[in-house]
Amino acid sequence: MSEPTADFPLQQWCSGDPQGHRTKFAIPPHEKFVLATTDRVILDFHKFEDLQDGSTLHLLQREDQALTAATEEHINFTPHYDTLIKGGLYEYYASEGQNPLAYALAELIDNSLSATAKNPGARTVEIRMVFDGGKPTVIVLDNGCGMTFTQLKNWAVYRLSKFSRDKVIVGGKLEGYTRPDPVRRSLNSDISYFGVGGKQAVFFIGNSTRMITKPVGSPDVHELILSKEGFESREKDKRDIYSTVIKNRKPGDYSHVKGDDERCLRALIGEEFGKKSFTAVVITGVSPEHVAFLKRDFDVWTRQLANLYHYYIHGVNGKDTSSCSAKVDHLPKIDIQIILREKPPKSPSVLNLREIDDDRQTLFLNATVDTFEFHAATEKDGGTVEGVIRYHPFLYDRETYPEDPDAPPALDDDASDWENESAAWQQARARKHIFDCFWNGRLIPYTKLQEFDWCAASKGPKELAECYGRISGVLFSDDRFEVSTNKLTFMDLEVKLKQNSTIFTRIVNSQKQRGKILKDFTEWLKKCHEKWDKQVKFVGFKETIERKEL
Amino acid sequence: MSEPTADFPLQQWCSGDPQGHRTKFAIPPHEKFVLATTDRVILDFHKFEDLQDGSTLHLLQREDQALTAATEEHINFTPHYDTLIKGGLYEYYASEGQNPLAYALAELIDNSLSATAKNPGARTVEIRMVFDGGKPTVIVLDNGCGMTFTQLKNWAVYRLSKFSRDKVIVGGKLEGYTRPDPVRRSLNSDISYFGVGGKQAVFFIGNSTRMITKPVGSPDVHELILSKEGFESREKDKRDIYSTVIKNRKPGDYSHVKGDDERCLRALIGEEFGKKSFTAVVITGVSPEHVAFLKRDFDVWTRQLANLYHYYIHGVNGKDTSSCSAKVDHLPKIDIQIILREKPPKSPSVLNLREIDDDRQTLFLNATVDTFEFHAATEKDGGTVEGVIRYHPFLYDRETYPEDPDAPPALDDDASDWENESAAWQQARARKHIFDCFWNGRLIPYTKLQEFDWCAASKGPKELAECYGRISGVLFSDDRFEVSTNKLTFMDLEVKLKQNSTIFTRIVNSQKQRGKILKDFTEWLKKCHEKWDKQVKFVGFKETIERKEL
Ligand SMILES: Nc1ncnc2c1ncn2[C@@H]1O[C@H](COP(=O)(O)OP(=O)(O)OP(=O)(O)O)[C@@H](O)[C@H]1O
Ligand SMILES: Nc1ncnc2c1ncn2[C@@H]1O[C@H](COP(=O)(O)OP(=O)(O)OP(=O)(O)O)[C@@H](O)[C@H]1O
Ligand SMILES: [Mg+2]
Ligand SMILES: [Mg+2]
Repeated sequence: MSEPTADFPLQQWCSGDPQGHRTKFAIPPHEKFVLATTDRVILDFHKFEDLQDGSTLHLLQREDQALTAATEEHINFTPHYDTLIKGGLYEYYASEGQNPLAYALAELIDNSLSATAKNPGARTVEIRMVFDGGKPTVIVLDNGCGMTFTQLKNWAVYRLSKFSRDKVIVGGKLEGYTRPDPVRRSLNSDISYFGVGGKQAVFFIGNSTRMITKPVGSPDVHELILSKEGFESREKDKRDIYSTVIKNRKPGDYSHVKGDDERCLRALIGEEFGKKSFTAVVITGVSPEHVAFLKRDFDVWTRQLANLYHYYIHGVNGKDTSSCSAKVDHLPKIDIQIILREKPPKSPSVLNLREIDDDRQTLFLNATVDTFEFHAATEKDGGTVEGVIRYHPFLYDRETYPEDPDAPPALDDDASDWENESAAWQQARARKHIFDCFWNGRLIPYTKLQEFDWCAASKGPKELAECYGRISGVLFSDDRFEVSTNKLTFMDLEVKLKQNSTIFTRIVNSQKQRGKILKDFTEWLKKCHEKWDKQVKFVGFKETIERKEL
Repeated sequence: MSEPTADFPLQQWCSGDPQGHRTKFAIPPHEKFVLATTDRVILDFHKFEDLQDGSTLHLLQREDQALTAATEEHINFTPHYDTLIKGGLYEYYASEGQNPLAYALAELIDNSLSATAKNPGARTVEIRMVFDGGKPTVIVLDNGCGMTFTQLKNWAVYRLSKFSRDKVIVGGKLEGYTRPDPVRRSLNSDISYFGVGGKQAVFFIGNSTRMITKPVGSPDVHELILSKEGFESREKDKRDIYSTVIKNRKPGDYSHVKGDDERCLRALIGEEFGKKSFTAVVITGVSPEHVAFLKRDFDVWTRQLANLYHYYIHGVNGKDTSSCSAKVDHLPKIDIQIILREKPPKSPSVLNLREIDDDRQTLFLNATVDTFEFHAATEKDGGTVEGVIRYHPFLYDRETYPEDPDAPPALDDDASDWENESAAWQQARARKHIFDCFWNGRLIPYTKLQEFDWCAASKGPKELAECYGRISGVLFSDDRFEVSTNKLTFMDLEVKLKQNSTIFTRIVNSQKQRGKILKDFTEWLKKCHEKWDKQVKFVGFKETIERKEL
């Protein structure tokens, strides 16, 4: 045999009598040979059937014979579907002890804000939790632009971001991404980045999602189901796991929805008539733990969401509880409405996030008597950040610095002397992390920024030392500063802003000021102290009198 | 026209004269009609070409006509390749300011530890950094079991974990996962879980990886390249992006390696002769920033790795710098060797992680005078944790509590009074987080556990208050406690251990003690204080003398 090694695809073989091999390759009858897969599994008649089509086989003289010539074999390595269905599980693992469900819901609100950005009229997002006895269902519904068939297909593609879609031909034309023009506080509604948010969120919340959407200008509604069960059954049937169908139908047609526990789905489809465009994300398979949390801690997660979207809801200056006109800018109003339906006789909870007045931003804004605005520009990447520092004065007998309503609960809850001491210091430390940070207008909840040099107590006059503990702040960046895929943390905002080359400028009435920011800030702080801090001082001490009669 | 809507695959159409449509469907010449895609793009002759095969078309009377019957269209939504190539980028984003490269390398060392777990003899992992002028290359090489062709293919499948592989038929037999038997400190070398670690790591470190592996009992070497470029070119050529080839060749055959900058690859292949089995991960496209960090901060990342694998390297009791026999158990030795080659005349740096004696674990073990061992069992899930608390005494004029060598550098580096005060308190707070946490024997670096009730100062006698600041600890869990996919954080270790139902038991000489752990611990602490703390006290104060002559 001149060529002891050969590789050829299995299809070329007719199965049957293994003796057939001998003739096919014209091997002299006295020469021994074996047939092996590239895993060096020696083939016998029975193993033939287990082989997949296209397997490469080696014809060898001995089982352990070296290959004279290298061979190449095709493989396919499509990601396992756990990529999608377990994505969120790990993305939203929280600082231990805190439930991250609000942050998963936020991904869907993000998408709705993007989708409604160009609405001519009101922008509404409704989160409807139906826990009234049927399948627990979470619905996120918006009156945004909706998705065409192709966009809905693209929604399902994990990691297909707007930047990659750039290169993709959609419905015959190149679908491109254009960065929105800069707007104040970066409230640009462009809160999409990675192409993962929606998928991670829905599989964190439940295990099956029906996307229902009607794009502007089309009479058709498109429906797509992505579910754990679907993946599993396609795998079992050896079908392509990333293949499914989109249903195209007319609005209001729920003929395909069976089963009594789908009442809320039928109702939802019934509402489609007359809507120009919309998207509904319908999540089922919600775990009992999630349902319990969403019911029991309604106040907690709605307050977290109100904080996350504070400036989208209330406008660039935030909620102003003192004045009547909450909106100073004249953009379309954004309503984020929460409805939680439980079993009767419990009546549904209905809440517009705008009504919430104990979220962190509102509390801090309410306790603000003066502000210092600035602008930061990083040199290399052209990143810009708007910043506001707020003064919370000392009034008579106490600090007015608000407590953080979202502070994680301590794991050991009985307090001791030592713990209390530490808690006080934790507060003090927390005040070094004075800045809440927003990305394209949306809070990135786990990143708090430390003070900058020019607003640090160490750089200021000693007599103002305690005033440095009375400031809080907010930073607004656009997406030139990156966040992690779960949008819980900035990647390097602090590092970039603290480079020496970063230029800070004070802003007064939207005008950049020329002066040195350290000096400007210190003067501002001094003025705040003089004007706002009202300390009761006992002056002119004479003597201590013991009043025996009391 | 009785059926105004029809859908059918494009292939059924012969392109050409659009008038042909009319005849094909026998539409009377006076009736108007349009052909539209499911995106409601009206087809004209030119758009035909842009359509992909298999597109569904609707035959409609008007552009905006509603569908009478719902239609279904097949879609494919295979994840975008950014899933792999950008996976690590976000997984390893670090607490700002710290470089997470060591933790990416750790994923490859994890894999090598798993692969060498059943080695009859020595277990060696070599990290070879070749920065000597050619393409910067990072190689992780081990003498473990290697991978068969099919296992190598499975390596490339994102999110295919050992648990999912369970269900997969490999080379004709069901490849199953069996949980290893419990061993002390959970040093079971079973440090695989998600099926993502290797892929995230290699694409974090570089942009092209060549896996070279020879499985035990096979004469063949298998080679697989996964690269950003490969993905991009397959996408461009509209080929299946998750499809490539594995090369099967004999050991030492580097005929396929061209180019002068691949010298280190040829050298590596040249070393294959005579090796029973091995795996080499060869990473190129390493960014200049990474190369700079790996060179400049050699001490930092090697120390981090020495800490991560401390108990694998030094055995269950850790490094004992006082005694000569570092290993008390008689398992095969694990060598993790680092070689950094730079341009001559610089000579290569060679370091065995075992030699490092300033990693956190070594420092703490060296400063330990007494230990308190315990065992924690959570009720519901049968999770068990081994724990050790160590006492670091006060000696004469100072605390011996070591400083953390891996503490993140402060971003503002000039210290002020306020900062110093705060730093002291940070230390104090840090001591509340007394436990380093290990998962299957490997450190999970970002999780530090707070004290338990029974070892908290608040629960102990006042006179021992300061002794509670002299303890550090380690916890060893197995994978019944989950970690995040990047293995940087535990998901819920603290929450689970702090449930009321968790049972803590003191261990003395490997025997469980019956007593109450709070009492046992307090007594142990008292004894430590009496026996080990050497405080110089000035007793019998008489008067203060001012020595004017000095
Ligand atoms: N409610 C919606 N209305 C219209 N289009 C939507 C909606 N939700 C999602 N999409 C489309 O689906 C795409 C994918 O959404 P997904 O949240 O998974 O990723 P992304 O928003 O692109 O990026 P990120 O990972 O930052 O969330 C979006 O970019 C958008 O085009
Ligand atoms: N050095 C190696 N030697 C032998 N097999 C290996 C090696 N590296 C990886 N493998 C195989 O490839 C698989 C995939 O590795 P990868 O690190 O990507 O994921 P994993 O280890 O399974 O899970 P994790 O996400 O926890 O790392 C491993 O489970 C193992 O079977
Ligand atoms: Mg999104
Ligand atoms: Mg791994």
